[in-house]
This record gives sequence, C-alpha cells and structure tokens, in this order.
Amino acid sequence: MSDFRACGTVTLLTDFGLEDPFVGIMKGVMLRESSALRFIDVSHAVPPQDVELGELWLSQSYRWFALGCVHLCVVDPGVGSDRAALAVRAGGHYFVAPDNGVLSSVWRAEPHAEARRIEPERLGITAIGRTFHGRDVFAPVAARLASEKLSFEAVGSPWEPLLRPEQPPSQTHDELLGRVVAVDHFGNLITNLPGRWLSPAHTRVEVAGQALRVVASYAEAELGECVGLLSSFETLEIAQRNGHAAQSLGLARDARVRVVRAERSS
Amino acid sequence: MSDFRACGTVTLLTDFGLEDPFVGIMKGVMLRESSALRFIDVSHAVPPQDVELGELWLSQSYRWFALGCVHLCVVDPGVGSDRAALAVRAGGHYFVAPDNGVLSSVWRAEPHAEARRIEPERLGITAIGRTFHGRDVFAPVAARLASEKLSFEAVGSPWEPLLRPEQPPSQTHDELLGRVVAVDHFGNLITNLPGRWLSPAHTRVEVAGQALRVVASYAEAELGECVGLLSSFETLEIAQRNGHAAQSLGLARDARVRVVRAERSS
Amino acid sequence: MSDFRACGTVTLLTDFGLEDPFVGIMKGVMLRESSALRFIDVSHAVPPQDVELGELWLSQSYRWFALGCVHLCVVDPGVGSDRAALAVRAGGHYFVAPDNGVLSSVWRAEPHAEARRIEPERLGITAIGRTFHGRDVFAPVAARLASEKLSFEAVGSPWEPLLRPEQPPSQTHDELLGRVVAVDHFGNLITNLPGRWLSPAHTRVEVAGQALRVVASYAEAELGECVGLLSSFETLEIAQRNGHAAQSLGLARDARVRVVRAERSS
Repeated sequence: MSDFRACGTVTLLTDFGLEDPFVGIMKGVMLRESSALRFIDVSHAVPPQDVELGELWLSQSYRWFALGCVHLCVVDPGVGSDRAALAVRAGGHYFVAPDNGVLSSVWRAEPHAEARRIEPERLGITAIGRTFHGRDVFAPVAARLASEKLSFEAVGSPWEPLLRPEQPPSQTHDELLGRVVAVDHFGNLITNLPGRWLSPAHTRVEVAGQALRVVASYAEAELGECVGLLSSFETLEIAQRNGHAAQSLGLARDARVRVVRAERSS
Repeated sequence: MSDFRACGTVTLLTDFGLEDPFVGIMKGVMLRESSALRFIDVSHAVPPQDVELGELWLSQSYRWFALGCVHLCVVDPGVGSDRAALAVRAGGHYFVAPDNGVLSSVWRAEPHAEARRIEPERLGITAIGRTFHGRDVFAPVAARLASEKLSFEAVGSPWEPLLRPEQPPSQTHDELLGRVVAVDHFGNLITNLPGRWLSPAHTRVEVAGQALRVVASYAEAELGECVGLLSSFETLEIAQRNGHAAQSLGLARDARVRVVRAERSS
Repeated sequence: MSDFRACGTVTLLTDFGLEDPFVGIMKGVMLRESSALRFIDVSHAVPPQDVELGELWLSQSYRWFALGCVHLCVVDPGVGSDRAALAVRAGGHYFVAPDNGVLSSVWRAEPHAEARRIEPERLGITAIGRTFHGRDVFAPVAARLASEKLSFEAVGSPWEPLLRPEQPPSQTHDELLGRVVAVDHFGNLITNLPGRWLSPAHTRVEVAGQALRVVASYAEAELGECVGLLSSFETLEIAQRNGHAAQSLGLARDARVRVVRAERSS
C-alpha cells in the first residue's frame, strides 16, 4: 500500500452532541496540527456510549468518502480506563477510535485491514487527561495522519482489535429473519436484512404483528401506509409515507423483522 | 451570462436532521467530485417534507451569499416518484433541488431565472436508488456545477418548474393583513408583511385577540412584553423580550396577523 | 504585538440554534468578505440570551485553537439598544462580541488584553438593522480581522469592556466551596472548583445532601455510581457512570458543591 495517500479530510463521528464546545475543541486541536485540514461532521448525535450505533453509522458512511480520508470516531465509554486507542488502515481509509468494538463492521468488511495501538508517549503526546481522549489523543493522531505528518506504521505496534459479536440476519427458503438496527430522523426503521436477499416473491414484511407490503419507493405507498422498501443502505427499511413509522408501529431498535414469500393464492 | 462563474461554495438546506449520517454522506459524495469545495450548512432542521418552510429559508438565505454559489436544497417528499430534479440559475446563483415548488420564491424574485431538468443518465450518473436522491443525484450535480466540471446548459433540457401557489399579504388604507410564515429558534413569529408597508402610523399589531405595540428594537419592549418590530428579513416580526412569543401567545405558523393604524384619540 | 497574524479561522459561538438559517447567513456574509476563511462551530446551543454560559464556553474553548484565530461570539440580548460592539485582542487571539460581559473571563485571564469599540460607520458598514447584528456588524468585522483586511487598531477607539461580577469558589483548610457552572451533554455537572485545589485528602464531594467519592476516571466508578473527578476543563466534575448525573441527583446550574477532607477514621 505504498500508494496510500491521506487526502486531508477528517470525518467526525461522536456521541458528544453539539450543545457543548467539545467538537469545536477537537477541531481546534487538529487545526493546530495542520491548518490545511478539512472537517466533515458525520454525526455527533450517537446516543451517549452507544458503541453499536456508532459502529453502524461509521460502517455505512465511510465508503462514500474519497480514499485517504481519516475517520475519527469517538464513542468511548471506557475513556480513562486501560482500553487501547487504535488507528486502523482498511479499504483505503484510516480510522482512529477507541478499541471497544466500534470498528468491528469496518474490520470485517475490509479484507486487508491492519490495526495499530496508539502509543501516545512515542508520539510526544503527554498532556492526557482521564475524561476527554477525543481531544487529548484521538484528535492529534487523526490530524497527523490526515496531514501526512505521521505514517501509519509510526502510530504504534500492531494490535488485534476487539470485535463485537455479530448478530447476523438469517434466511431460509420461506422467510428472512432480521432486526431493526436504527431508527432514522424520519422515523424509518433500518433493518439488517440485505437488499440482495429480497426477491420479487418477497412481498410481505411482518413486524409487530402487522403485515406490510413491499414497494419500490415511498411514493408507491398510500398516504399514511407503512411499507417495506430498499433503504439507501441497501437493506430492508420500514417506512410510513408522510409519517413516522417507528411511532406509528410502536417499534424501536432490535425489533424483530420477518419477510415472507407471498402465497400465490392470497 | 457568460461571465457567470461558480465560486466553489455549496450551501445545504435539507430536512435530514443531524442525527444520522445523511448530510455527511452527501458531503463525502461531493468531495469525491472535487476536493476543493466549501460547504456551508444553512439548516438541516426543516421539518420532514415541509417544502413550504424549505422554500422560505432558501429564499431568505441565498442573497447573503456571494454570486456563483450553488444552493443545494433537498426537501423531497416525492423521492423515487417521477418528479423531476432541477438545476436553476437565477440572480447569479445556482440552485439544485427537486421540482416540487421549493424554488418558487427564488423563481418569482429573480427576473431572468432559467431551469433545466437534471438528466442523470446523460451525466453518467447511473447508480440511483429510490430513497436518497440527495446523495445519488443532487449532490453530484451540485458538486460538478460548483467546481465548474459541468456547465448549466449541460445539466439537461430547459424545464418549467412547478410553482407553489402564492399566499400574499394584503393592504388597505386601514389595515395590513398577513400571516405567520415561521417561528424561529427564539420563539419569534416571522410574518409575510413587508417592512416597507409599515408606516409610522402603523402602531398596533393584532394577533390572537391581543393588541401589541410596534417598536424599533427588542430593547424598547418591557421585559416580558410581546411587540411587533421589523425582522432581520425585512418583514414584520412578533417577539417577546427575553421570552418565547410563540409559546406566550399560543401562536404557530399560519396564524393571521393584522396591523392597524392608531387612532389619534386612543 | 507586531508579529500578531490572523490565521484565517473564525470560530462561532451563539445562541442562534441550528434550526433557522441565521448561522449560515453569517457565514455567507463572511465569505463575501473573504472566500478563504475557515469556520469552526463551537456551539450554537447556548440557551437564548444566556450570556453567562456563552462566557464559560468561550473561555474554555479559545485556548485550544491556534494563535491568530478570531472568536465570534453572539449572545446578544441587547441587540438594537445602545450597548457597544467590541473587538478584543487577548492572548494572541481576537474576539468579536457585544459588550455585555460575555468576554469577562477572557479579559480577566489574559494580562495584556485590549478592547476597541466597533465603529461601523467608520468601517463603511451602514446597512444595520435592529435585530441581527451578528449578520450586520459582528460577521463583517470578524471576517475582515481574520483575513487581515482590517487591523485591530482600525476597528474603532479603545474601550473599557463591561465585566460580569465574579462568583469565585472559596477554600479553607477543611473544605472547598463552589458551584455547578454547566451541565454537559452527558449530564455531567461541571463546577468552578479548580482541579489544582484538590489534594489526595479531598476524597468526598457533597451535593444535594449526598456524599460522593472522588475518583480518577469514569471507569473507576461503579455502574450507576455518581462520583467526583477532574473534568477536561481542569475543574471538579460530578458524573454518573453510564448515567446522567444531573437527572439522577436532581441538580442544575448554580447548585452548591462542597468538597471535604476525609477523616482518617471514617
């Protein structure tokens, strides 16, 4: 990977919210490392300590960015403990994050992923508190990688990242079984059922004791109707036209979703 | 308009919220088209599918930006249907948006506005889902216009944009009649009554059965008093000093507002 | 200070929220002054007119940015009144803000701070409304300072800024007395008790009739336990592990906090 070049862009994904100055402070720290960096906020509204949702948003967003981006992800319930801090090189991207499983999906998706444990003292990073490693550790490392002031190899020693257990969906001839992995801003329920599993015969989604039609776009649903369709993440999504599916169906993350083949006669 | 030059800035106005990675993904797609673009978020808190408020914020914000900006506006209840996708050149700015009326105010305000229907296949844009044209269609076109990789004429064929019906305010010698078009973050009620209609004789605003004074600045109101004054959009605004006028008056969008001339004797 | 150079970065701290286009409009105005500026949002979620919290976030954030940044802070309950508009040069940074005390902590912290009253007419800034000086006055001045189109001396005449009264914490041999100055996104209570006052003997925090342990990191607390620890602002913080301390303890800003030395025998 000698042709791997950082592109000067750092994306940020955290559970810090936007009320407090935390995100701005991280960017200030990074600009002190290099004033030429570009920042793109992916989300700062991951619920506090929700590593699972951070993992999902990270794995769904990085592929839309140019190669050579640095993806800084700080959802870090273990800050101040002895959990490791990581830099990962995978699929032509860099990732900087705590070693708590938030990189699991990226790691599994990218065949030649490599991880290094960040060794701050080796990098001359010594002013490290116990509560805000986003500012004290992750931001400086992300900025140096993004500006090519630091090579991946110099970050620290190779490391085996902690992986979260997988909860994969399942398929049989008769049905697909999955779960809701996120509820988006519109109230749409994003599931983990891959779109490529859906055949034209899969015309019915069952959730919360209700049977929904599968359609091709929001516009094909009746006003107020809840339907299944292919999400922008290439998975099954449950949406309500001009409504909030999660509220209308009373569903939240982890709800079970079943897709069945329609009987010709029904 | 041969001297029309894109300035490399893309403004973003959507109903996507900031919780999910949607806005970040659109920026990632645009940076892949050109890494030199600059992004300014106008708002991502347009209520879901609220084309009317999107239209208002767009028409009130674009004039504060330099000529040559591209204004990307994605409030798109018809995504995945056969509604057109548009690029508009008007008043020295570009606009990229679905053809659902969100550009009506811009179109009416700018005398030499021109519209083109985006023809994605002609532009080599083929990976288009049914739920996220902000990412798949609007972002690439906005980025190419902003970086001058695409000329306006090459976007597609000329098109007549859909216009929303106007709901103009009215004036007689005795009164001005308008309505609340937005409630801002502070609870101020923004109306559609043009400031230039207000004369010194217009000293009373009637809303919700109450009569309010017209003043020149927030500081002229008593603490807690609701008053009328000239908004930063050059329209009548109803505000409460150190308070939330909308809550205090129990008013929301579309509330009727009347301004009357004071009787000399009262 | 002849070697003082603006670095082209403007940070923004306001009570405008992110729903409306106000923040975007200010950036548009600044980009018309100079298209090379860089913007970093510190927070736009200061509660409306909350000068005290604006002062805190400003004083805690600016030091993390490179020298030569311009910090634009618009929390401005007196907009449209005769309160002055200020530019301050302090500690190698510029600040642009209304003269309402929001710069008090910066002023007190930086020994050689200088202030100038912004004289808009002298700068050719004439289109000034009565409700949005962030757009009409502060943004153009911030942009010109940041792009070195305007020198600090040319802003206007020297001025003595208004200072908010201090509410300092106190210490005796037996106890430290302070108060909660902010509640962050995680529900952590940030106090004004300096970390350097804490000795190893200070092992107990008393708030709301409860006694809490002092620990070194979140990870040292039991799940659900409320503890005191050193915040990322180098002050005492009260946090609940994997919880929301403010809600759990029923505490808000201004709550009294006491730290006592542990009895050897207890």
